[in-house]
Amino acid sequence: MITNPREMHVVTRHLRKAGKNIGFVPTMGYFHEGHLHLMREAKRKNDILVVSIFVNPMQFGPNEDFNQYPRDIARDSSLALEVGTDCLFCPSAEDMYPEGFDTSVSVNFLSSTLCGPSRPGHFAGVATIVLKLFNLVRPHQAFFGLKDYQQFIIIRRMVADLNLDMEVVGLPTVREQSGLALSSRNIYLSLEHRTTAAALSKTLFAAQRFITERKLPTPLAALEFIHHTLAAEAPEMEIEYLEIRDAESLREITSFASRSVIAAAVRLGNVRLIDNVLVEPSNSP
Amino acid sequence: MITNPREMHVVTRHLRKAGKNIGFVPTMGYFHEGHLHLMREAKRKNDILVVSIFVNPMQFGPNEDFNQYPRDIARDSSLALEVGTDCLFCPSAEDMYPEGFDTSVSVNFLSSTLCGPSRPGHFAGVATIVLKLFNLVRPHQAFFGLKDYQQFIIIRRMVADLNLDMEVVGLPTVREQSGLALSSRNIYLSLEHRTTAAALSKTLFAAQRFITERKLPTPLAALEFIHHTLAAEAPEMEIEYLEIRDAESLREITSFASRSVIAAAVRLGNVRLIDNVLVEPSNSP
Repeated sequence: MITNPREMHVVTRHLRKAGKNIGFVPTMGYFHEGHLHLMREAKRKNDILVVSIFVNPMQFGPNEDFNQYPRDIARDSSLALEVGTDCLFCPSAEDMYPEGFDTSVSVNFLSSTLCGPSRPGHFAGVATIVLKLFNLVRPHQAFFGLKDYQQFIIIRRMVADLNLDMEVVGLPTVREQSGLALSSRNIYLSLEHRTTAAALSKTLFAAQRFITERKLPTPLAALEFIHHTLAAEAPEMEIEYLEIRDAESLREITSFASRSVIAAAVRLGNVRLIDNVLVEPSNSP
Repeated sequence: MITNPREMHVVTRHLRKAGKNIGFVPTMGYFHEGHLHLMREAKRKNDILVVSIFVNPMQFGPNEDFNQYPRDIARDSSLALEVGTDCLFCPSAEDMYPEGFDTSVSVNFLSSTLCGPSRPGHFAGVATIVLKLFNLVRPHQAFFGLKDYQQFIIIRRMVADLNLDMEVVGLPTVREQSGLALSSRNIYLSLEHRTTAAALSKTLFAAQRFITERKLPTPLAALEFIHHTLAAEAPEMEIEYLEIRDAESLREITSFASRSVIAAAVRLGNVRLIDNVLVEPSNSP
């Protein structure tokens, strides 16, 4: 395990010089099957798999769960090894944000919408740490789960905008049998809320199917359907936002002519959950 | 000459694979001896010299001189060749800021002071374009003139904060015989103002000497001396700021115990000039 950023640079230089392709999975640890899926894919497509674990203080708000965020480095290390990780990078907050640290990276419009308003500073924190990690690991490919869809779009935009010579790969959300998207924060859910939580993905997938079948012809009709269904099936679920947006620009749309994403954030008790499904463009009839 | 960012990536990958050390001088063109000095040094210390010319719209304010900024690409190319440039990179604004561009990099405190207040957005524009160019060219060393001292400190901080595996080298300001710091904008000066302008560097150097000789024992005394001297010798010079700061943190200081910088921005007619001198720490008597 590497903890020192300078040492990571040395390893990166060495791997690059040796002509190895580097696949990278940046994480906050507490691995579930979603993380392991990213790692297996990253390993399959590259010579070397680098995984980082860093619970990034900069992306948590003052009232968020930085201190409570679940951590289990021993279990994570052995899981990472099992799936073929060649290098596990676990830097300290002191090394990543030394005294005098003064830089931030923002992807401006893309961070201002969906989860943005309820988590001020979150995506700048994500963009900054991910860029730092990219510069330390210098991957050919980096892998992210599409569960954090806005994060994926922001990182891909940042990589293009800053001319990084690498590829950002998004992999489909891994789900429980119930449909609930895997998340390290799911451990906070009560057993009852866990059942209720599954209504979110079920309803999003139902909407996706009805849109494809032209039973929900417009974004407006689809949103109404989802709101009604959730109100009936999960009345204790509080909807923070529910939006249908262009899948690339995250801008509002009035038809399903382009690829789109149905994205939602909800609260069950004090647990905040997000989920999304993609909708392929429908050709005009 | 390379104009396409993708082509620059290809060249960079090729040079890196071949094990070449890359020295880089990013510029806005209209070369003077200051630029050429940076290029010669970059070439002397590296296998390959890459020079970029890009007049970056993002670092000009709406009331600044983007359209009027002097350009002479034919002369610049031949000068760059003469000093041994291996690769001249001149991208277009459309390629550097394509539709949907959404990312900005800020070095926050360091950009908020000195030139910051009078040029809102300027240093974020500089940091963003320089990071893009670094990612395209992937230099081992990048060279900047210390005439733009705050810019140098900001870029060095950004490189450290974002864990870029490269060195930022600052070289002393190249000056006319009169002491006037070379600048592409000096062509805007009338002959009369050009003579007056020299009073700025002369006074800064005088202060530097008197500080070293303990005749100006405190920053306050030194600032008073400079203000008085300029008021007497260049009454038509309008001082935008005149500050003595810690040379690394750019924070205010009350003694010369640490290395410091005397930095000034002035106006002569509608021409804005900046200059600075460094002051080594004096040991307590």
